[in-house]
Amino acid sequence: MRNLNQHNITEAVLASFANTPDPRLKEIISSLIKHLHNFARDVKLTEDEWFKGIQYLTATGHKCTGTRQEFILLSDVLGLSMLTIAMNQDKPAGCTEATVFGPFFLEEAPKFELGSDVSNGAKGAPCWVEGRILGLDGEPIPNATINVWQADDDGLYDVQYEDLGHSQARGILKSNSEGRYYFRTIVAEPYPIPTDGPVGVLLNATKRHPWRPAHLHFMVEAPGYQRLITHVFRDKDGYLDSDAVFGVRQSLIADWVLQADGTYRMDYDFILPKIGVK
Amino acid sequence: MRNLNQHNITEAVLASFANTPDPRLKEIISSLIKHLHNFARDVKLTEDEWFKGIQYLTATGHKCTGTRQEFILLSDVLGLSMLTIAMNQDKPAGCTEATVFGPFFLEEAPKFELGSDVSNGAKGAPCWVEGRILGLDGEPIPNATINVWQADDDGLYDVQYEDLGHSQARGILKSNSEGRYYFRTIVAEPYPIPTDGPVGVLLNATKRHPWRPAHLHFMVEAPGYQRLITHVFRDKDGYLDSDAVFGVRQSLIADWVLQADGTYRMDYDFILPKIGVK
Repeated sequence: MRNLNQHNITEAVLASFANTPDPRLKEIISSLIKHLHNFARDVKLTEDEWFKGIQYLTATGHKCTGTRQEFILLSDVLGLSMLTIAMNQDKPAGCTEATVFGPFFLEEAPKFELGSDVSNGAKGAPCWVEGRILGLDGEPIPNATINVWQADDDGLYDVQYEDLGHSQARGILKSNSEGRYYFRTIVAEPYPIPTDGPVGVLLNATKRHPWRPAHLHFMVEAPGYQRLITHVFRDKDGYLDSDAVFGVRQSLIADWVLQADGTYRMDYDFILPKIGVK
Repeated sequence: MRNLNQHNITEAVLASFANTPDPRLKEIISSLIKHLHNFARDVKLTEDEWFKGIQYLTATGHKCTGTRQEFILLSDVLGLSMLTIAMNQDKPAGCTEATVFGPFFLEEAPKFELGSDVSNGAKGAPCWVEGRILGLDGEPIPNATINVWQADDDGLYDVQYEDLGHSQARGILKSNSEGRYYFRTIVAEPYPIPTDGPVGVLLNATKRHPWRPAHLHFMVEAPGYQRLITHVFRDKDGYLDSDAVFGVRQSLIADWVLQADGTYRMDYDFILPKIGVK
């Protein structure tokens, strides 16, 4: 490899990885190199552009902290996150579809009894949420673990407030013997993804808006069933057709219905495939 | 875009960038998305692998400081740096070829008179370096600015020593009225690129060595001529055929000749095209 040029360098780089012991790593790195090199060749990347790319990735890394993941956000706005989920969470017909996890899930969330108010002081219009956890044959799934989390009326998750000191608008519930779940919370509202970092710079330079349509996050787990990570989106939201992270699926849209007493209600059933069912 | 799946998401993401005002940015981001998505599809990237990728990029960003650029190092070992240079520095026949810039150049380097010892106390066997700066028609280029920098006998550049406090084995010289340059320094030796970060993890996992063949860095600038950034590599080095950053070109290899007095000597002429000549 003493006479590398733009045409033969890719083969030389691939050859340098020939002794990679893990075949999957070798497959991934080889494909990455081919696509990375072909990208650079396709656009005939200049040295200045290459360096801007280096600076952009560096700034993205420097923006990442324990509570902020700018590379996930970048993956989200480039559609890579949703593509990865779509490839791996291709559910059997009839099952609830998956969507992006998002950066605001917390392993540690407060546990609530059914019927509790998970908002815990978060700002927003009151809302009742109710539904069932079901198997693909319609069987109720009792004792399923339901993680729920959402933004407040100002479009912020609890973890985005410095010094809040406690959880808001997130919690863990268990379905009852009939597979039912129900809780009080606040109405989901649209919100912008964080734009104070390199992802905001990208959206601004490309005239893309940062908004996500209103949604409620759910993670549903039950022994013997495949774990489901998804959202329920609020019908008629103006951003359903331009979600900044490409997460919307028609089957995940539900109505938030205004009740006579001025509160809202949303009903949604989750249908989970058993483990091994494709 | 309410029914995005692994097959149609790429078109939706491309469409979201349709209003990008800068046509070059639009071209680059569109190509990047296509290649990024096709990479993920080609290997059917799993969610775990995606997350490992996020963690790897984050760690790479966190390793970057004012004196350490891990993303450039990653670009180097993936051959992207050399590919970019090869595409943009495709010199006219007869001119000296370019190679990777590397992360150890400094804007501020000490100026030396011709014949000075630029090593400035760096460890290594004494060496005399001499040559000419010429145009493509053989005309000498007087008063050319010659930046030179290199690693010492331990394989380290001055900037890699904490608290060294002064430059070593780097400097700026001017060619004389005959286009000649000459200076004292130390012999170039092979050295490993830094492996204490994510790039080291990658090389280790793929059984690649981190070594670069011995070389001396040059940047040559003269009014009316195209800037040249290159190395001169030391002949017979054991890593010439497996440079960790793919920088070797046959035309850039020269002999470091052991003299009767126990010192070394290396001769190399640089040939620069005029601005506009392709």
